[in-house]
This record gives sequence, structure tokens and C-alpha cells, in this order.
Amino acid sequence: MQTPTNITIKGILGILMSCLDEKNKKRVISLGMGDPTAYSCFTTTDLVQDSVVQTLESHKFNGYSPTIGLPQTRKAISEYLSKDLPYKLTPDDVYITAGCTQAIEVAISILAKPNANILVPKPGFPIYELCAAFRNVEIRHFNLIPEKGWEVDLDEVNALVDQNTVAIVIINPGNPCGNVYTYQHLKKIAETAKKHKILVIADEVYGHLAFGENPFVPMGVFGSMVPILTLGSLSKRWIVPGWRLGWFVTTDPNGIFKNAKNIERLKKYFDICGGPATFIQAAVPRILEDTKEVFFTRTLSILKNTSEICFRKIQEIPCLTCPQKPQGAMAVMVKLNVSLLKDISDDIDFCFKLAKEESVILLPGLTVGLKNWIRVTFAADPSSLEEALDRVKSFCQKHSHQ
Amino acid sequence: MQTPTNITIKGILGILMSCLDEKNKKRVISLGMGDPTAYSCFTTTDLVQDSVVQTLESHKFNGYSPTIGLPQTRKAISEYLSKDLPYKLTPDDVYITAGCTQAIEVAISILAKPNANILVPKPGFPIYELCAAFRNVEIRHFNLIPEKGWEVDLDEVNALVDQNTVAIVIINPGNPCGNVYTYQHLKKIAETAKKHKILVIADEVYGHLAFGENPFVPMGVFGSMVPILTLGSLSKRWIVPGWRLGWFVTTDPNGIFKNAKNIERLKKYFDICGGPATFIQAAVPRILEDTKEVFFTRTLSILKNTSEICFRKIQEIPCLTCPQKPQGAMAVMVKLNVSLLKDISDDIDFCFKLAKEESVILLPGLTVGLKNWIRVTFAADPSSLEEALDRVKSFCQKHSHQ
Ligand SMILES: Cc1ncc(COP(=O)(O)O)c(C=O)c1O
Ligand SMILES: Cc1ncc(COP(=O)(O)O)c(C=O)c1O
Repeated sequence: MQTPTNITIKGILGILMSCLDEKNKKRVISLGMGDPTAYSCFTTTDLVQDSVVQTLESHKFNGYSPTIGLPQTRKAISEYLSKDLPYKLTPDDVYITAGCTQAIEVAISILAKPNANILVPKPGFPIYELCAAFRNVEIRHFNLIPEKGWEVDLDEVNALVDQNTVAIVIINPGNPCGNVYTYQHLKKIAETAKKHKILVIADEVYGHLAFGENPFVPMGVFGSMVPILTLGSLSKRWIVPGWRLGWFVTTDPNGIFKNAKNIERLKKYFDICGGPATFIQAAVPRILEDTKEVFFTRTLSILKNTSEICFRKIQEIPCLTCPQKPQGAMAVMVKLNVSLLKDISDDIDFCFKLAKEESVILLPGLTVGLKNWIRVTFAADPSSLEEALDRVKSFCQKHSHQ
Repeated sequence: MQTPTNITIKGILGILMSCLDEKNKKRVISLGMGDPTAYSCFTTTDLVQDSVVQTLESHKFNGYSPTIGLPQTRKAISEYLSKDLPYKLTPDDVYITAGCTQAIEVAISILAKPNANILVPKPGFPIYELCAAFRNVEIRHFNLIPEKGWEVDLDEVNALVDQNTVAIVIINPGNPCGNVYTYQHLKKIAETAKKHKILVIADEVYGHLAFGENPFVPMGVFGSMVPILTLGSLSKRWIVPGWRLGWFVTTDPNGIFKNAKNIERLKKYFDICGGPATFIQAAVPRILEDTKEVFFTRTLSILKNTSEICFRKIQEIPCLTCPQKPQGAMAVMVKLNVSLLKDISDDIDFCFKLAKEESVILLPGLTVGLKNWIRVTFAADPSSLEEALDRVKSFCQKHSHQ
């Protein structure tokens, strides 16, 4: 196996951080990572925290769980997801993972076979590429169209598919673009997947984090049309990314993917996975049932506010264009017009000089597949966000022609 | 990739559990799994528990950790392991995993390349075989010699190695045999690995759980002779297997394995792993520094006692022979003489009928590589252990020739 050469988000952010100028007196503001816990306005609720303290202090969950997860946890997640579906998932559909990251790893590893390829969005989330490289799966990129709300270019998908294509990855609500797909568009994606007899891997790690025009529609509503592997976690909606509690779900009511052979392979795969702590799993039923609606609406209204600040501030910067106001998730893609800048060669150069001169961290678009774009995370407190984007503005002014 | 057909311990125990006879009034006693938390005499200490409550309640560790682990956790583990080594490990040598299970997965995946093979003990721990099957790595088994305290058959190792051999796995203290290797034997293993220029994967998940004649010697003491990958976890010594906190350590002071290319590949691999919860990681420094010696000695004295009960009781059963009194870990292998039984065909048949008739769960040796052997876990409370083995005795009497 070759060493994969992909860039990872954490890798590039680490390098950017090491480029900060220590003589610079400005406080460092990172709009680079999708970890909102860095900002005090994004804290999980007491109930969530207490649920885990309770299971931990019960002394009942220090032992091993089944490698696919505790039965009560699988049940709770199946019920949680079923609320938004036209049919019922069963606990058997749910496998507990160490975050959505491990759910991605499971999906790719399970689908790996000689010559298999998987269709992945561009821009996207680089863990897919990295997993595929380690598992010898070919990645084929289809474009998301900025002018059409970052919808999937389905013509391109049709052209890319061949007999070795096993799945298409859809990230909705979208990272890195902050888009939320309509029911109609998701349906077209499902129809396309059905036509080609491929699975849909629905990365819904940002599930329910939709605060714009389009409501969040889980891909699983089309599970009767085409088998869906739904990936998710507590990380974003409950603001506990460090807990590493995720799920891999066969949203496949007709049992097309989940035949005996695949289920056996999946179960065995989980035996080597490691998985999340038993006591955190044990807290999930209470967390899913009892988290108050007001906690969710509060998060959404903060994100709506910060996404608007972000959009407005970026409009004030001539060399940056935001093709669409973000509607969901925690980040947005902005286009960089280097021709307006005198001494910046590309997005990487932009982000490195910005880190050094202004102590602001943004993610170069190349990391997520788009050169000369930049990803800006708006999951930050309003004042940090304003200050960071003010600094970006003056940075751009300083580096623009004349 | 083919679906691996290996049996797993949890898989077979699950089937055994489903064979219990509900009409049977006897309480179920499992000596099948290595999860001592099922018995109240094996509980972790308050300090360990409180350390995690504290980091959780601090609200400071709900965010992502670096994928290779928190710096303070890596430092604490490097210092913990260095205490028993003739040189110092650095925090950079330590990678945090979701239990020793994930450390095994990382080791196998990182070493996977076309045609590679790995030498694995028989009897052993089936996760190695399962991982290797998923990663297309060939497994070659060498025997452990029961008459010589389950030492490695080094002549066989020499015969098995070829130019595609990348590593040899050593589990010490031993699961499933309950043996603890001497310094001299470990040195011979290191010399053999050095001669063939292969790595040693030292599975020390039972590290320090030695209560017999031989003290526990970490394989890492031979790290200057040959590069060692040391795998471990909190699971056994701290009796928290459900916490999924383990480590993968490059015990390689001469930097033979940890060249720039391997380190880069390892770091990238951790980006797809998932890993353990940040707040559990954050508790590790306090756990490693402050756990009182009395907690460890108490566990060892219980295990010494239960291992002796186990050994003595088994000697009373004619069809079972225990080649060596256990000295470490939590289980022992006993040989089944089916010729003394009238209607038992093999170890599998023995364990299934025993479950049905006596509600006692033992692990068929075939699961760990030895047909017509049985693995008995002695990490149980003394009265359960005595009762279980009394039932095994009467089961054997019932099924023996007249
Ligand atoms: C699209 C996408 N998928 C998966 C993940 C990983 O989620 P988790 O933190 O639950 O592992 C992220 C994290 O940012 C993400 O953005
Ligand atoms: C030899 C051996 N290695 C690794 C493991 C897995 O350890 P963990 O529970 O830390 O994942 C076990 C568990 O029983 C084991 O016996």
C-alpha cells in the first residue's frame, strides 16, 4: 500500500498554527476547524453532560459493550432517526462508532474490493480520500455547482459511474459549503443512484443544523428507492465532538444492502474497530430522548446569526466572493480572486500570510478540493468572527494593487 | 476482499449464550470472556473513576483532541512506560487508541503491504487473524509449547520467516495461556527478530498482571536491539475495559522503524481512526500518576487466589489437564481428553453441552487456535469460580465412560 499523500484539514491547520508570528500581539482567532467548543457560546447542555456523569458514576458501564454497540443505544438511535422517516428503522440497523469519522472508515472499508470506486463530492471532506487511499479504493470526484446552491452535478455523476462504482457520498447539510439540499434534489440523487445500482453514503454529521430556507431532509427518506448508509454522530448537534460517539446505519428497508453476507462482514468488522466508551453509549438514550428543543433552537439561532455576520463581512471584501448565503452546517466556501492582490499567489499563500500577519486561521480551499477558494468556519462567537473578518479585510487591502 | 471466516471470541460466546437452557434453574456463570467487571471483586478504584468525572465536569474536554491523542496523555503514557525501560520514551512515541483492540488494528494496517506476512502465536488472540484478513495480510502461526511454560517455538519461527515477514506478535503476560515470559526468553525472541530484521509487536494489554514466579518484563527493554511496537490499554490493569483507552507505542530508541515516512503514514492513519473520548484521555495523567499501589496489589492477590482455585479444581477433573499453573493475565488453557468422555466429540461440543446442561460458559480452544483445548477465565469471584468448576466436574462425570 502506498502512503497516501492527501492533505488533511487537521494537518494543514497544524502547519498554519506553527506559522503564527509570536511577535504579533493580536490574539489568535481560528475560523479553520469545525470545532465550535472553542467558543463559549457553543456549549453542550447540562442534561447531556449529566447523563454521562450518571452512567459513569453508576459503575455499571465500565465493562465491554458488544462491539457493534449497546442494545439500548442502538434502539435509541433507531428511534431518533425513524422520527424523520416514512418507515421504522430497527435497532439492528444501527452500529455504534467512534464518531462519524469511524463511521466513514467502516463504510469505505466494508465497500472495498478490488477495483472498486466511490464517487465523492468536490469540494468535500478529505477523510473520504484518506480512508480510500488506505483501503485501496479509487475515488472519483464529481463537482458541486456553486451557482446552483452547491447542488450535485448529476450529469457528471452519470458520466463518472461505471460497473465498478459501489457508492456515492452525499454530505448534507454540507461541509465545506454550508448548503442544505431540497427534497427534490435529494430525490434526484436517489434516482440517479438507483439507476446505476449504487449505494448512497449519506454523511449527516450536521443533521438538523439547518437554519436557512431549506429544511433538513434526511437522505433516508429515499431508503425504499435505494439503500442508504446513514452516517452521523453527537458531535455537532450536541456540541460534543470530543466524545467520539457516532453511528453507521443501514437505512435500507428493502434489505438490498443488508443481506446475510454483508451483515456478517459488518459485524466482524466492528470486532476490530475499538469503538466508543460503554458509559458514553449508555448515556445516549437519555440524551436523545430528553434534550430540550430550546437547546437546539438556541444553537440554530446563534449559527444563523454568525452565518449572516460572516456573509455580510465577506461581501465587504473585494477579493472574496461568497456564491451563496450559508443555510446549514458550520462553514462556508468563499472564492478568492488573486488577480486583485499584488503579492498573493494562491489560497495556500493567502492563508499562510494571513496567519503570520493577522493571527487569523482560515482553511485553504485546496484542502477540501478547490484551489483558490477558502473555507471560513462561522461557528465562532460573533465578536471573534467580526474581528477576524475585519482583519481579513485589512489584510486584503494591504495586499491589493495600489 | 474476501469476507474473513475467522471465529471471534465474542461471536462464539454469543452463540453459546443463546444455547443456555431457560428451563435450567442454575444461575449462568461465564468464565468465557476476559471482562472481570462482571464480578464485584474486580472494580476499578475511586480515584480512576473520579479522574474522569473531573475532566468531564470541567467542560474543558468536550472538543476534538489531536487525532494521535492529547499531548499530556501521550506524555503521561511515555513516562509510565519509561519507568520499566533502560532508556526514555518521548511523548512522540505514543499514539492514543480506542483500546488495545484499535492498537492492534493500527499495527496490522500500518504494516500491510502486498504479500506481507506476520507471525502470530498459536494459541493466540483471534483479533490478529481478523484484522489481517480485512487488511489482506498473511498470517503464519508459530506454536507456543505447553510443556515449556507456553514459550515460543523459536525453531518454528526461524522456519516460518521469509523475506516478506514484517513482524512477530508476542502476547505477554499471555492470553489465553496465563503464562509470563522470563527475561531470558524475551531476549531470545528479540534476538530472533533482530536476526531476521523483523519488528516485534508486543501485546502487553495484560502488562503488570503477573502474580507468579516470573516478574513482568516489558518487551521494550530490548528496544535497542530490535524495534518494538508496544500495545497496551487501561482495560485490564485498571479494570475499565469499557473505557476504550489504549496506546500504540514505538519502543524504538534507535529510530529504525520510526523514520519520517513511517511516522507520516502513522499520523495520517490516526486521522481516520476515531479514537477515544477527549475527556477520558485528559484523565489519564492523573490515573497513571496517582493510582495507589495497594489497588494493584489487591487485584494481583485476588487473581493469584482465583488462579490457584482454578488450577486446583481442574486437577480434580480427570478429562481436563492444565499443563502449567497460571502466572499472569486472566485465563488459562486446559487440555480436554475426549477419549475419557462417552458422548462428547470435541471442545466445541463440550462447551455447547456444558452451556445447555450446566449454564456454565467456557471458551472452546478452537476459537484461539487449539482444538480440544478449553480456555478458562479465572477473573471471577472465588465462589462463582468454585461453583462453575464443580458443575464442570459433575458434567464430566455424567459424560464419562461409566
Ligand atoms: C462532513 C463530515 N463528516 C464527518 C465528520 C467527522 O465527524 P465526527 O467528529 O463525529 O467524527 C466531520 C467533522 O467535521 C465532517 O465535517
Ligand atoms: C491479548 C489481547 N490483546 C488485546 C485485547 C484488547 O484489549 P482492549 O480491551 O484494551 O481493547 C485483549 C482483550 O481481551 C487481549 O486479550
